[in-house]
Amino acid sequence: MAEIHGVKFVLCLSFSLLLNLYFLWTSTRSVKELSWSKGAAVEAEVVASVSCSGHGRAFLDGVLVDGKPMCECNSCYVGADCSHFLDGCIADADSGDPLFLEPFWMKNAASSAVVVAGWHRMSYSFRDSHTRTSNELENHIRLLHAVIGNAVTEGRYIVIGVGSTQLLSAAVHALSPNGSASPAKLYKAQTKYFNSEDSKWQGDTSLWENSTSLSKNTTDTSATFVEFVTSPNNPDGKLMKAVLDGSSVKTIYDHAYYWPHFTAIEAPADENVMIFTLSKVTGHAGSRFGWAVVKDKDVYERIAQYINLNILVATHDTQLRALKLLSVALKGGGKELFGFGYKAMRHRWKKLSRSLSKSSRFSLQNLEPMYCTYFEEVTGPSPAYAWLKCEREEDKDCHEVLKSAGIIGREGSVFGAESRYVRLSLLKGQDDFDWLLERIDALVSQEYGSRSI
Amino acid sequence: MAEIHGVKFVLCLSFSLLLNLYFLWTSTRSVKELSWSKGAAVEAEVVASVSCSGHGRAFLDGVLVDGKPMCECNSCYVGADCSHFLDGCIADADSGDPLFLEPFWMKNAASSAVVVAGWHRMSYSFRDSHTRTSNELENHIRLLHAVIGNAVTEGRYIVIGVGSTQLLSAAVHALSPNGSASPAKLYKAQTKYFNSEDSKWQGDTSLWENSTSLSKNTTDTSATFVEFVTSPNNPDGKLMKAVLDGSSVKTIYDHAYYWPHFTAIEAPADENVMIFTLSKVTGHAGSRFGWAVVKDKDVYERIAQYINLNILVATHDTQLRALKLLSVALKGGGKELFGFGYKAMRHRWKKLSRSLSKSSRFSLQNLEPMYCTYFEEVTGPSPAYAWLKCEREEDKDCHEVLKSAGIIGREGSVFGAESRYVRLSLLKGQDDFDWLLERIDALVSQEYGSRSI
Repeated sequence: MAEIHGVKFVLCLSFSLLLNLYFLWTSTRSVKELSWSKGAAVEAEVVASVSCSGHGRAFLDGVLVDGKPMCECNSCYVGADCSHFLDGCIADADSGDPLFLEPFWMKNAASSAVVVAGWHRMSYSFRDSHTRTSNELENHIRLLHAVIGNAVTEGRYIVIGVGSTQLLSAAVHALSPNGSASPAKLYKAQTKYFNSEDSKWQGDTSLWENSTSLSKNTTDTSATFVEFVTSPNNPDGKLMKAVLDGSSVKTIYDHAYYWPHFTAIEAPADENVMIFTLSKVTGHAGSRFGWAVVKDKDVYERIAQYINLNILVATHDTQLRALKLLSVALKGGGKELFGFGYKAMRHRWKKLSRSLSKSSRFSLQNLEPMYCTYFEEVTGPSPAYAWLKCEREEDKDCHEVLKSAGIIGREGSVFGAESRYVRLSLLKGQDDFDWLLERIDALVSQEYGSRSI
Repeated sequence: MAEIHGVKFVLCLSFSLLLNLYFLWTSTRSVKELSWSKGAAVEAEVVASVSCSGHGRAFLDGVLVDGKPMCECNSCYVGADCSHFLDGCIADADSGDPLFLEPFWMKNAASSAVVVAGWHRMSYSFRDSHTRTSNELENHIRLLHAVIGNAVTEGRYIVIGVGSTQLLSAAVHALSPNGSASPAKLYKAQTKYFNSEDSKWQGDTSLWENSTSLSKNTTDTSATFVEFVTSPNNPDGKLMKAVLDGSSVKTIYDHAYYWPHFTAIEAPADENVMIFTLSKVTGHAGSRFGWAVVKDKDVYERIAQYINLNILVATHDTQLRALKLLSVALKGGGKELFGFGYKAMRHRWKKLSRSLSKSSRFSLQNLEPMYCTYFEEVTGPSPAYAWLKCEREEDKDCHEVLKSAGIIGREGSVFGAESRYVRLSLLKGQDDFDWLLERIDALVSQEYGSRSI
């Protein structure tokens, strides 16, 4: 018996020791695996775990209260934990802040996090190649276009910049006559941002189409014309083609919204100069990262030179993060991100359409279902913005009508349209959309008298 | 005995269980501590552990070979692990790539790493404040200037931008007459980068000082003059003051190098518009992060507006990283980073000076020891660049003389000087400096005939 107990004792001890050793080994190994990065990882997870009632978020670089980053609340929410809704709050649907994708990145936290070492890419250049763009990043961009089928990139040049704003300036510069006495004439609302010797803003394209000889297939060599084509269009989400034509006309395609979140993909775009931005693909507006896909080598070099003089190089920190985000975007052939994005935007459009279908005072742009080569099926509209029209004769200032109902949109005049149009952003966070919809519902119900308020 | 064994057995089991439970608990806790961030942390440490023989580095966004980022070698080194020195390699001392600080960040890996979550600051703005700059970051910038004593920031505005390149453009824009028929006239080499309606490059300041009425204390109201003052000066490291004066003269101080690494701090600078860049403080050139300290509210707002139109906002990814880097820079009252930086630059200057002291063919700029208010002692020169002069009558093209000895510098003409001057960068990585010094030693030894080669 003693013998048996002794054997059991030894066995128990050995087993326990082995188990202890195993745990010791695994914890040591985990410490070994994580040395210098561990503190930063813990710090990030602590901040991420701060509870803001689902109506806000704490960030690593947020304002500290008692050494802890405080909650930054969504619009209309206040309080230390963002739990209090502000009565009478205005529904702000002005900006195109793409926070509808934030939940996707919360869900994909593990695959989308990046650790930036203190010594990461301190140099201006990448050491070996003396280039200033990550090859891997460029490959990911090409791969994404191939997978989604929204742009041809084979044999094209890619240049990256700080968001599409800067790339648009760079492209105008690249397409303008160098040192010419008559600068390029520009067409499209963005032009108010430019003020350089190279370019002069000439107004909305449609005005020029009628009043000059620059309609399709005519040639005017006295000046260079640069036309911006935003497709899908901002504000109304329709796919667009160039209006002007001729040897003196250069066209810049802003394809910021040409992704399955917002539109059916018709075919790979194959234009001379096409501009994209991370902001509307992954939703990272704050990273300020865009790229141009360019056919012509000279134009590519002039764009790259402009960016080089303007900022030297796109920040390496963002290049690293963009690489990681695009690698997640590519997962499952893109179906995870773009499936999520399309579903979210489609749902919002349906809800808003249903709400406004009861109204005769307000109408929305008409968007038809289309066959999407990416999803391989007919998809219903899922635009980034609603292009609302006030139909009543007396509602000339639609922005004002909405404002008095507690809704802020962007005036139609910003897009060269009548003031009876207003753009409403549908791609902000869920709280913003929910509150916008409530205000719209309330406004529509007024049409049927006080009983339905 | 059986009883005793039984007690022992229970005790052993309990103890073992407790020990097991303890390890189980600690590993669970550590898993709990690190959930979503762990993969990214492991990934970063694996890449950091790639050995490149001390002559290169692997980066997270490097080109992959067999799924692993490959070594990116320092200049003159090649091979899969960068262990092979390229015979006859040219010593490239052209660029101001501040890699002399890389070892500091390797040493401070744990405190300087940052984990960027996939959902980190996707929005254009910071939620609560609707600002686009982190308050904590701005506070860190102010604190750093206060600790180092190199600039007054109390009651001043701070605006951040993409490196100092963009801020210089923005400041010129802000100081130029708005829509005026006669644009601002600019003085300093940087002006070749600008090409806008607002400004025209007029040449080197010293030419104007003599040839126009714009010497000190005269007033010319017919035009606006913008003078750039780089202090410490690039290339020669001397502290500079404005040359032009008068009510029509605006001055922009580029204080990129006004840090204890490169110069004794005389007193807190207190100019109207002062520009700084992270590149020359922490060495992170690739992050493209700069800031302007501005006295006048109107000028501040025009700079901010220019940056807003140009890029909308400085990338949030870099803001987060800059915050972390500056918090490390502030450790120990800045003594760790600036102590390291000064020591490194001082050592290089001494070595180069000693080497060239044997030469009558080449000379260096003369820099005197000065009292540094930051280190609270007299410090010897530690400039970012050597401003080398070829003294021999026949060595008119100094750049060519050096080139044929296997050294690439930057031509004096780039800085408006004679071609018998060349700028040599002293702030690159250690391999670059070591090889430069060897080439210089070899060149100097030629003066004494073949015996000493």
